[in-house]
Amino acid sequence: MSKSVNVAILGATGAVGTELLELLESRNFPLNNLKLLASPRSAGTTLKFKGETIKVEAVEAKAFDDVDLVLASAGGSTSKAWAQTIVDSGAVMVDNSSAFRMNSDVPLIVPEINPEAAAHHQGIIANPNCTTILMAVAIYPLHQVQPIERIVVATYQSASGAGARAMEEVKIQSQAILKGEEPKPEVLPYPLAFNLFPHNSPLTDEGYCEEEMKMVNETRKIFNTPHLKITATCVRVPVLRAHSEAINLEFKNPFSVAEAREIIAKSPGVELLEDWQKNYFPMPMDASGKDDVLVGRIRQDISHTNGLELWVCGDQIRKGAALNAVQIAELLMEKSWLNTAKSSLKV
Amino acid sequence: MSKSVNVAILGATGAVGTELLELLESRNFPLNNLKLLASPRSAGTTLKFKGETIKVEAVEAKAFDDVDLVLASAGGSTSKAWAQTIVDSGAVMVDNSSAFRMNSDVPLIVPEINPEAAAHHQGIIANPNCTTILMAVAIYPLHQVQPIERIVVATYQSASGAGARAMEEVKIQSQAILKGEEPKPEVLPYPLAFNLFPHNSPLTDEGYCEEEMKMVNETRKIFNTPHLKITATCVRVPVLRAHSEAINLEFKNPFSVAEAREIIAKSPGVELLEDWQKNYFPMPMDASGKDDVLVGRIRQDISHTNGLELWVCGDQIRKGAALNAVQIAELLMEKSWLNTAKSSLKV
Repeated sequence: MSKSVNVAILGATGAVGTELLELLESRNFPLNNLKLLASPRSAGTTLKFKGETIKVEAVEAKAFDDVDLVLASAGGSTSKAWAQTIVDSGAVMVDNSSAFRMNSDVPLIVPEINPEAAAHHQGIIANPNCTTILMAVAIYPLHQVQPIERIVVATYQSASGAGARAMEEVKIQSQAILKGEEPKPEVLPYPLAFNLFPHNSPLTDEGYCEEEMKMVNETRKIFNTPHLKITATCVRVPVLRAHSEAINLEFKNPFSVAEAREIIAKSPGVELLEDWQKNYFPMPMDASGKDDVLVGRIRQDISHTNGLELWVCGDQIRKGAALNAVQIAELLMEKSWLNTAKSSLKV
Repeated sequence: MSKSVNVAILGATGAVGTELLELLESRNFPLNNLKLLASPRSAGTTLKFKGETIKVEAVEAKAFDDVDLVLASAGGSTSKAWAQTIVDSGAVMVDNSSAFRMNSDVPLIVPEINPEAAAHHQGIIANPNCTTILMAVAIYPLHQVQPIERIVVATYQSASGAGARAMEEVKIQSQAILKGEEPKPEVLPYPLAFNLFPHNSPLTDEGYCEEEMKMVNETRKIFNTPHLKITATCVRVPVLRAHSEAINLEFKNPFSVAEAREIIAKSPGVELLEDWQKNYFPMPMDASGKDDVLVGRIRQDISHTNGLELWVCGDQIRKGAALNAVQIAELLMEKSWLNTAKSSLKV
């Protein structure tokens, strides 16, 4: 295959799309041609890339004809609508949506964890859920040394997880409350400014919301541990960008804090950030715009001999979405796994 | 003893002090005389009580001479400074600070849980930490039916937990950020507006902060279960008032969700609030100003056969502080435990 490829971003005007564009530029991705695709509503707008102005085109079947790689971030229904066309055209789709993540024919990849699983893709590779990626990157280095037996996680998820409009809504609501007015929820179901609520994704029969079940199921798939015990409580908090997670880990045997710190400090994709003297640990404001997931407050769980407590913050638009997708694309290039032969995958 | 008593509020002008005043009025506490005490700095200000204007007096030794009951909420150092004087004067002190909570001569009381422990007080009764009270009230009804073996809790603590000035700071910082300016932390160590951070109380050698160790040690004392396994992660979030907690409980045997709901629904001090159709569960904005602790999202923990997940919100100034103190005072009145005989307690 050629050393530079034709790339299309599907959903180029969204929060993740914009970040994808920025990352392709800053990481100097070997592009031959870049096509920006979006819904007819957004078509016609222009975006800057390496000083050039690129016009956003409306997505249509023939748009994929000369494309090798599609970075899709326009939501599950758009991904579902175009996946077969993309695969049939011979391009590879790296999909940010949840549409195909649990499909057994679709690898679910975090490049720091399971890059080899991408080798056998059939035209679609899924990018995991943002909250899942942040946790997975943070705990996998420990899991490699000693298998994790159970995870109890509580999340603190920023408004940006619900998109740019939700971020804007929190600002507008905050302004209203500061003026003594009533906050109006439109994008999110309840006021988020100076408030918080359990994640508003649909509830499953077990009482877990879909966001929580993504953390459970996707972590199992990425780690290739179908029976790993995980429970999660996902909560939206009035933070603009970057998610935080309080992660309780149980191992089969004791895991020393010193060893855990050493491992995190040298592992890819994570940064150990803790200043115990200053009581300074990762915060969303530190993690925003950062590639690495920040890990700190590594403590021996005083309630469990084999337990560790971790505190994690990560930019869910960056490593939680766009960066991970670009890293998958880079992996495909590096390993020459960007097949241009047509796949027979039916989705 | 008489059916109405002389009460002093020590720290009358603070956030909890003001709430104490409001509760003594609204609950029609049997007062003979009410004295408002504060630091010399706050002395001279006036507060309203049942239509009357009461002048705040500077605290001094003789202020306690004719007092039966002191509700103290002026911080640990003030409580320590005046405790012996109060006890020696024959009054009973219900102390909101952490100064004496773990003192074996001082009962630590949540009236819904261990009222009988107040019987043997020696002049001081401690009011537990706010985060601890909210969790304890929520989980004790379940613990009574089947002993809890382990608790993994993550908190979402509002600015009001750090006092009225911290609440004001979050508002000022939010305004600054909305204007594109830098937020300035003064009361709290880091900007809290649109951000969050692990609780800023001093860290212990184990890496737990004091707030977390209060949850561990005080819950054990209140439940009279010295070896109950508890781990906590306490986090400050940009909410103005009311704390939230994601609580994971492990029991010795399975605990059915249906039974747990039934128990919570009929227990004192808690309100079951969950609408699974609307994905509506307790939020800080619901809990603010409420007496009851709101409990919802009771789920079977899918990672543990004997586990339950709970989501709790409560007003930490009210049930977490002032209301619990007034309930203790009411208990003392009802049981005639408000000894006026001088205690020999030395603190």
